[in-house]
Amino acid sequence: MDAIADRVLKLETVPERTPVPPFDLVIFGAGGDLALRKLFPALAQRNEEGVLPEESRILGIVRKAEDVEGLPNEVAKKLKDSGLPADRIAAFLHRLTMVQMDALKPETYAALKTALGDSDRVRSFYLSTPPDLFIPICENLSKAEILTPTSRVILEKPLGRDLASARAINDAVAKILPESRTYRIDHYLGKETVQNLLVLRFANTLFERSWSSRDIDNVQITVAETVGLEQRAGYYDKAGHLRDMVQNHVLQLLCLFAIEPPNLLEADAVRDEKVRVLKALRPIVGPDVQRYTVRGQYGPGVAEGARAKGYVDELGQLSNTETFVAIRCEIDTWRWAGVPIFLRTGKRLAQRYSEIAVTFKPVPHSIFGAAPGCDQLNANRLVIRLQPDDGVQLQLMMKVPGSGKLKIVPRQLDLRYDTAFGVRSPDAYERLLTDVIRGDQTLFMRRDEVEQAWSWIDPILAGWQEYYPQPHRYAAGSWGPSQAIGLIEREGRSWADPELME
Amino acid sequence: MDAIADRVLKLETVPERTPVPPFDLVIFGAGGDLALRKLFPALAQRNEEGVLPEESRILGIVRKAEDVEGLPNEVAKKLKDSGLPADRIAAFLHRLTMVQMDALKPETYAALKTALGDSDRVRSFYLSTPPDLFIPICENLSKAEILTPTSRVILEKPLGRDLASARAINDAVAKILPESRTYRIDHYLGKETVQNLLVLRFANTLFERSWSSRDIDNVQITVAETVGLEQRAGYYDKAGHLRDMVQNHVLQLLCLFAIEPPNLLEADAVRDEKVRVLKALRPIVGPDVQRYTVRGQYGPGVAEGARAKGYVDELGQLSNTETFVAIRCEIDTWRWAGVPIFLRTGKRLAQRYSEIAVTFKPVPHSIFGAAPGCDQLNANRLVIRLQPDDGVQLQLMMKVPGSGKLKIVPRQLDLRYDTAFGVRSPDAYERLLTDVIRGDQTLFMRRDEVEQAWSWIDPILAGWQEYYPQPHRYAAGSWGPSQAIGLIEREGRSWADPELME
Repeated sequence: MDAIADRVLKLETVPERTPVPPFDLVIFGAGGDLALRKLFPALAQRNEEGVLPEESRILGIVRKAEDVEGLPNEVAKKLKDSGLPADRIAAFLHRLTMVQMDALKPETYAALKTALGDSDRVRSFYLSTPPDLFIPICENLSKAEILTPTSRVILEKPLGRDLASARAINDAVAKILPESRTYRIDHYLGKETVQNLLVLRFANTLFERSWSSRDIDNVQITVAETVGLEQRAGYYDKAGHLRDMVQNHVLQLLCLFAIEPPNLLEADAVRDEKVRVLKALRPIVGPDVQRYTVRGQYGPGVAEGARAKGYVDELGQLSNTETFVAIRCEIDTWRWAGVPIFLRTGKRLAQRYSEIAVTFKPVPHSIFGAAPGCDQLNANRLVIRLQPDDGVQLQLMMKVPGSGKLKIVPRQLDLRYDTAFGVRSPDAYERLLTDVIRGDQTLFMRRDEVEQAWSWIDPILAGWQEYYPQPHRYAAGSWGPSQAIGLIEREGRSWADPELME
Repeated sequence: MDAIADRVLKLETVPERTPVPPFDLVIFGAGGDLALRKLFPALAQRNEEGVLPEESRILGIVRKAEDVEGLPNEVAKKLKDSGLPADRIAAFLHRLTMVQMDALKPETYAALKTALGDSDRVRSFYLSTPPDLFIPICENLSKAEILTPTSRVILEKPLGRDLASARAINDAVAKILPESRTYRIDHYLGKETVQNLLVLRFANTLFERSWSSRDIDNVQITVAETVGLEQRAGYYDKAGHLRDMVQNHVLQLLCLFAIEPPNLLEADAVRDEKVRVLKALRPIVGPDVQRYTVRGQYGPGVAEGARAKGYVDELGQLSNTETFVAIRCEIDTWRWAGVPIFLRTGKRLAQRYSEIAVTFKPVPHSIFGAAPGCDQLNANRLVIRLQPDDGVQLQLMMKVPGSGKLKIVPRQLDLRYDTAFGVRSPDAYERLLTDVIRGDQTLFMRRDEVEQAWSWIDPILAGWQEYYPQPHRYAAGSWGPSQAIGLIEREGRSWADPELME
């Protein structure tokens, strides 16, 4: 198939190179990890693709004087490591203006105002900062009269730590900018496979016609990491895994999996449908958390081929913060009633992978009788793999070739994006950053979405406090606490083991 | 995926090696093309697999004295060419007894009777002869009292040239043997992919739930050959392509594609369902043949990379025999009403391949609007490929990776049997011959099936005689006459181009 793919490629995958409008992109927190690891490389990539107009600029806000020279050097080093030639790095850095200021001090915004000047270019303000800076930055931008009628602001997660704090942020932003120019990033929405989920569902009839409780037995959404605490100890231990991963990424995946067909692939049409899913998520309240959720925290074990410390050892203090969450949820709609949806995500798990696994109902009757090899007809399963090896896998039952007795075994029909298309999958931020400048909100979270998600998360957090304060232990490098297995097994279902795609 | 397949293989595809009961297999027409090309190699293969018990014998009936020594040599040569070592060839030839006799002369059956002796082994008589010998051979076997209570007879196609002649053969056979010991071979039923069609449908829910007019737009069954007349000029010119290919192979494929789920995968349950399909095939009568069928005959052209003669040149005389047939048919059942089924088969076509292509209905509404690259959402298509490269292909619409505008293109999920299972697909006869000895009739045609198929074919033959005596010409190496394109295009559908699997 690769041979055909190669041939077809030349015709079909010539990348679109429509330039965005001229812009100034201001990045608060330009010296931070996200900017260096994701934002600058994504912009440099888009620059290489000729999508950034000549006069467009990237303004990096830094606090310390040494960063004014230091940061461009760091960016250059990062780009050099990625293989970009020196002249192209220079061409990118040429766009970069460093502005030294303290985002908390209104008086320092004059420097930014001067740097921006009078241009009518699209101004975008990327708040790649801790969330407690969102409100002051918005207020200071407003006071300094830097916002133009087309200016937009981009907010990174976490967007609050509960419904109330999320509302406070949204209120503050709403005071200075309308919703139509507020871009809440969930980078999962920029992932190729996640976008392809909409195409898979709505550009194809085969799956969509089976996309309901009539044909689907259960759905499993897994986001498994092998890493531990990394550098975010302060934030993470206060937030916990439910806030860090489920409220945003996992629920977004669930929404796109479950939405009704929007009338058009257009920001509000899609987001309306996502909100409808979130509203239909059955609340898990009070002692129900013991029945429908599992909290876990990793202890010592083996991860990534080496001995790994437990969470509290890494953290350096006692903690009841969960590093693993499994939830059995249900969507109370005509389409989904009765289909259990299992969410599972955690750190220090056995394997790094994210996928949505849809298990269809089993055959109602086996015409193959109880002949050996034919007694177990696995249900069909569709796996939408986000990482690694993003692609689509369909598991069917097939006859083993041979002239003897009939033997039936599961086999996969595969499509891996890299081999099917022979082009790299762009990083999520490459699309998202230019979508902001183009003014396309489809892949960003609307205010009501974020708040609706918190409305579902808050009772779980409250229930945990009262009924489930201590997470269950699991060994680093395992599949989480045994209670997560029990969650699904007690109703006669099983977690879909990750298929090795090699 | 191949890596997994390899790993799984060791566990799952250890071939079944259950020996058949001890037998004597008598092959009439042992010196013929089919015996030499298919039957002996299939038996030798099964011998290698240890499935043929030590005392079992193969008796080859030949007419000429020189064949008694000559044929074993020919068989040996054939097996040597296939790579079998000399000692294994000798082991196989050891089973072979040549019996010289004239099948038309009752008095010569004494030799066969002597050769068979008194054993209670299962006796099978394979009539690999022209069909006009079927009746005399059956009568002579009976008169010579060679048939035991477990004896069975195997009939090769063609089984008659119309309903009346098929009935005559069936009547004659029925006089000496019950239906339960009559095996009518259609070797298509022994093909791995054809058997897997039943597994694909009834061991999986995903496709079966969409297997009806609700979700399927049209079905195309293509059996395309690149060869011309070959050595069968006398028979073929009298029969024509409809009798040679459609009455048996193509209708069998259609039946297995369309049957309702049998209660059990068991000979009569499956064959009952096949008969039901044949009975529901809407008759094409009188002038309707002009509307729903296309007859073609190849003229000169280019085939298999060289200039090719036309049919009449090859034949050496004028002829109105068709070498190509396309038919638009319908099955008048609850499941299939309104789904056109297009059959297409011919000689000297552009490419050798056989497949069943199921085109699902298009999306009812495109949420992707009329954006460039998104205006044409191809309908999903499932292709069950019989040859070459047997396997299953599912065509879906996918997003082209990239951060620019959404582009949606068709891509295939593939499963090829050779790579998925890493074992050779056995030849159809390997299964069929041992099925006879085991007494399993599932993959053989029952009397009423054959006659029902003729009941549908006869009116087309009659219609042609009156309304469509002259076949349309097509160039050797083309896809048949342009009228075959018109047959499908005039209702806004198209032939599924064969996908190149490389």
